[in-house]
Amino acid sequence: MKETVEEQQDFVKDITKMSDDFDRWYTDVVRKAELADWSGVRGMMVVRPYGWAMWEAIQRAFDDMIKESGHENWAFPLLIPREFLMKEAEHVEGFAPEVAWVTKAGARMEELEDPLAVRPTSETIIGAIIKRYIQSHRDLPKLTNQWNSVVRWEMRSRLFLRSREFWWQEGHTFHAYAQEGMDEANLILNYYRSIAEDWLAVPVLIGRKSPSETFPGAVYTLTLEGLMRDGLALQMGTSHYFGQNFSRAYDISFSNKDNERELCYSTSWGISTRMVGAIVMAHGDDSGLIVPPKVAPVQVVVVPIFRDAEGRAKVEKFINSWAPELKAAGIRSRVDWRDERPGDKYAHWELKGVPLRLNVGGRDADAGQVELVDRLSREKRALPAAGLAQALGGELQKFQTRLFERAQAFQRANTFELGTLDEVIAHFRDRGGFVWVQWCGDEAEEARVKTDAGGVTIRTIDEDTRPSGNCFVCGRPATLRVALAKAY
Amino acid sequence: MKETVEEQQDFVKDITKMSDDFDRWYTDVVRKAELADWSGVRGMMVVRPYGWAMWEAIQRAFDDMIKESGHENWAFPLLIPREFLMKEAEHVEGFAPEVAWVTKAGARMEELEDPLAVRPTSETIIGAIIKRYIQSHRDLPKLTNQWNSVVRWEMRSRLFLRSREFWWQEGHTFHAYAQEGMDEANLILNYYRSIAEDWLAVPVLIGRKSPSETFPGAVYTLTLEGLMRDGLALQMGTSHYFGQNFSRAYDISFSNKDNERELCYSTSWGISTRMVGAIVMAHGDDSGLIVPPKVAPVQVVVVPIFRDAEGRAKVEKFINSWAPELKAAGIRSRVDWRDERPGDKYAHWELKGVPLRLNVGGRDADAGQVELVDRLSREKRALPAAGLAQALGGELQKFQTRLFERAQAFQRANTFELGTLDEVIAHFRDRGGFVWVQWCGDEAEEARVKTDAGGVTIRTIDEDTRPSGNCFVCGRPATLRVALAKAY
Repeated sequence: MKETVEEQQDFVKDITKMSDDFDRWYTDVVRKAELADWSGVRGMMVVRPYGWAMWEAIQRAFDDMIKESGHENWAFPLLIPREFLMKEAEHVEGFAPEVAWVTKAGARMEELEDPLAVRPTSETIIGAIIKRYIQSHRDLPKLTNQWNSVVRWEMRSRLFLRSREFWWQEGHTFHAYAQEGMDEANLILNYYRSIAEDWLAVPVLIGRKSPSETFPGAVYTLTLEGLMRDGLALQMGTSHYFGQNFSRAYDISFSNKDNERELCYSTSWGISTRMVGAIVMAHGDDSGLIVPPKVAPVQVVVVPIFRDAEGRAKVEKFINSWAPELKAAGIRSRVDWRDERPGDKYAHWELKGVPLRLNVGGRDADAGQVELVDRLSREKRALPAAGLAQALGGELQKFQTRLFERAQAFQRANTFELGTLDEVIAHFRDRGGFVWVQWCGDEAEEARVKTDAGGVTIRTIDEDTRPSGNCFVCGRPATLRVALAKAY
Repeated sequence: MKETVEEQQDFVKDITKMSDDFDRWYTDVVRKAELADWSGVRGMMVVRPYGWAMWEAIQRAFDDMIKESGHENWAFPLLIPREFLMKEAEHVEGFAPEVAWVTKAGARMEELEDPLAVRPTSETIIGAIIKRYIQSHRDLPKLTNQWNSVVRWEMRSRLFLRSREFWWQEGHTFHAYAQEGMDEANLILNYYRSIAEDWLAVPVLIGRKSPSETFPGAVYTLTLEGLMRDGLALQMGTSHYFGQNFSRAYDISFSNKDNERELCYSTSWGISTRMVGAIVMAHGDDSGLIVPPKVAPVQVVVVPIFRDAEGRAKVEKFINSWAPELKAAGIRSRVDWRDERPGDKYAHWELKGVPLRLNVGGRDADAGQVELVDRLSREKRALPAAGLAQALGGELQKFQTRLFERAQAFQRANTFELGTLDEVIAHFRDRGGFVWVQWCGDEAEEARVKTDAGGVTIRTIDEDTRPSGNCFVCGRPATLRVALAKAY
């Protein structure tokens, strides 16, 4: 992955075709559609306004959901003392290799007595802090969340998917009952599904992770997995149930209804700016992005078409006669008055994936109508200026639905059910997608599949369907139905 | 300042009286009203939901303002290479003593080739990044902002006012014209004034800082200064005009209309979680907080009063008959069903500064009314349940106005105009407040005032009033009218 700071390019031209090289296409689109760039600090990205606005839309949607169900936002410290980080053994093992350490501070760069970790995730510091607010079962549940960035010293990097800093929310909850903790992990998983499917128009598989993919320190991890247009899976969020593991390490206890001390049951869960990468890879095409209307920074772009000052005045007057209605109706629209040719503007906004474009020329003004072109079908249709805001509101809803249905059709066409490891190996030799198989649950076999099938992993365990038949690896009776895929 | 992690206390009792010890009163209120606490990591705080919700209200209000005027949110990296930080000489000198350095990372805590600063502020990294997006005057202005936290290795600490991490927004803008940059710094100062006065109900002085208080690297710094109830001033936000200083250091240039390379003119500006501290200190009293309705997490609390299950059922039914209306009207209300005595609940919500309280008993239910008590006057009044939401909306507006007027009266009563340094010294021996004086502008005199008058500083220069008479220190003709105060 190149990280050199390039001059801004004339970004309408020369996007690698998706079919030629998906990885280059992805990087081209992310950079030329002005979503994000490498920052010049190795492995760290800068998120630009067009990308950040999508994240803000996701933030708003998810924040509303969790507040409605009683969760509260906190701000916990960025820097975590080493001793805090070291208390939960599996957790340390999982995260220690990725930690950046503050070791010096102040005027003469004095050595700190004890190094501080830049948070890679906050279970440890939240555990150390939250316990002072928990005395009795009446103080529970504690449903905390924070929006921040975390640092993980990744060696590979890919914009939005893997970088040394990313932005996310991390929820951490503490309960008096195990069942309540498990219900919480499920509730959040379903919120995440709603964000993916209802907001980002990306259908997902949801279920449990296999032990090898479980979060360090968790009893189990729930996941949502989307399918990208290159056939690779993307883990779009996770929700972990810890049982009493973290409470034991951090001594987070409460007096229960029988007035006995008991350790809390806890969860944690997160979605990140990776979601923006999912939008790109789940919906994009050779022309660039396609942004779901519900998170689109610009939902409708207006391209005025004219030859001279007189023509411009006419078109401008016409546009001004209805543009304020769009804003009043809550439609995020922009009129592109830049000094460029209409064709270049079309390509520009197609690259940026704006759902609806209105071409407006002098004849349209005369006829009291606009020409609507949508980013999916690219068909042109006339729409009367009268009632335009309402018509566009309807078009945006339809667009959102069609985009989801298109992704769903793609997912269906790329989901398979196979019986043996040989079939699995053959399948992934030249295809992607999800492959459902029956599995006995043996971890050594999971590792073997990964090696033999070129990096294929178990993305999720189906918790709704009863397993049947025999394990695809060893032929013993299956105990689990699992989805395999190559993944980011 | 103690930072030990204490057990949560029965927070209704034993707040130090404001008149006995303002500092202890402040800490008591911040902690016992559940705004924030020390985290257990030296000098770093944890902001609790009740405090964070106030910050979220401020964020929403300010974010709306800047977006309306074309500013865009970005996310720039947390970690800044040392070489970036070192380019602007004054800036380095100002911030280097406060920087925390990441020097090691990864599995074996390997030493980094070059240390990375945890951002104390982002002028340097933004300068280094933004220039790639600026080629011509058509790319300007670039109006960037980000919401994040920064780390400064402070040696003193005070919750919300001074801590090693705080949360803020930092705006950074780049312009083709000097005047446009200066206008920007002013525009933002006026947004800040609106946040302080219209949202937090804290009247402020606004103006320019003296050279000794100017931001390192700035041409000039604009400030807003509130007056706290102990008579000390609090700097509540600053807006800096850099001219071409940073653009020169970071080579941020554009081709102007004459097709010549020219350095950009830039600004930066920030407000922080310090604003929450201002709410506490500008409005609080011996009973605790008083929160301005526009940023109050809970605007109306309902305390049900009953003796037995039957009484409870009656009151509950009555409350349920109108409580949904409050939510529908956008009023943030809560019914306190906790198993505590009403008197304890009153004290609890007074401590938390909830503007309006409704006491609701069986007789109120019979009469179809509630008893309204407001946090400022504490007078009781009956309000009919019919039309309650609308009535409370009006009451909240009135409360906001009265709170501002009270703070304004306090500010007026504590603003003075004095003629000589002796008078200034005598004044600050046993009083606080703002003292306007005429000054010649000599920096050595500014330092002398600080020493002789026990830490008094020039808070702001009046840019609207023409100076007159003689300098309060040396008697030479005055060139500036300035406000003195002791400050946080």
